Amino acid sequence: MTTNAPFALRADEESIESGIALAPKFDADGLIVAIAVDAEAGDVLMVAHMDREALARTIATGEAWFWSRSRRKLWRKGEESGNTLRVAEMRVDCDQDAILLKVRVGGDGVTCHRGYRSCFYRRIPTGKAPDADLQLVFDDAMPRVAKRV
Amino acid sequence: MTTNAPFALRADEESIESGIALAPKFDADGLIVAIAVDAEAGDVLMVAHMDREALARTIATGEAWFWSRSRRKLWRKGEESGNTLRVAEMRVDCDQDAILLKVRVGGDGVTCHRGYRSCFYRRIPTGKAPDADLQLVFDDAMPRVAKRV
Repeated sequence: MTTNAPFALRADEESIESGIALAPKFDADGLIVAIAVDAEAGDVLMVAHMDREALARTIATGEAWFWSRSRRKLWRKGEESGNTLRVAEMRVDCDQDAILLKVRVGGDGVTCHRGYRSCFYRRIPTGKAPDADLQLVFDDAMPRVAKRV
Repeated sequence: MTTNAPFALRADEESIESGIALAPKFDADGLIVAIAVDAEAGDVLMVAHMDREALARTIATGEAWFWSRSRRKLWRKGEESGNTLRVAEMRVDCDQDAILLKVRVGGDGVTCHRGYRSCFYRRIPTGKAPDADLQLVFDDAMPRVAKRV
């Protein structure tokens, strides 16, 4: 597999949005956003980015690959933690600039490097303009294993 | 409300990931990705972007505001279609570069400008390296109203 994975060229909006060709839109950094949700429960687990190669490998293998922006490297999710993401279903959105992965988490079942089931372990209170007093609220009900970092 | 909405400054990783201050990470274009899911069913409806002002307005009003990259303007979701997104719950992820909105869709209940309930109306087949033969598969079960575009 090469980094020139043969996705379709992006044509007109009508083709992109109502056609059957996969013509992903990579941003200026060559990345597309990917959201992983639990295949059974449906909750959002994490958000990451894919380059062409990560997208191609995920499609080919049915396991989630990403591009790590901080480490600047291709990354098979779970390669160190054991928390691999097996893809039960994969989707693309209307304008093809976002990927959705419905996954089954391997290992001890957590996705976040902080040990939480999901990276979204804090709520933002709404109904009041944000100011210096705004305080995030931890979701105490979220499953967590021993902290990893 | 101003575009200088007073979010916390981004400090060290530990503070960002395990603290209670909202210190969102905006990208080089001043944007943060936001995922909207149905508050009851939990399915992913759409992915969009927020600038500081859209994030501040969403927090303040409990209705989803985004930054439209194509139209280069602040955008209250549903202001034309009626498909507003009322925020039942809002979350931020570990490194605070993604926002999750659990929403109730107004109007006729669809989120995608193509008339589908969700923008993710096409599946990407997996298990084979992508090539010119790859064909997306429409989710025929997804609710849709008359096409809007």
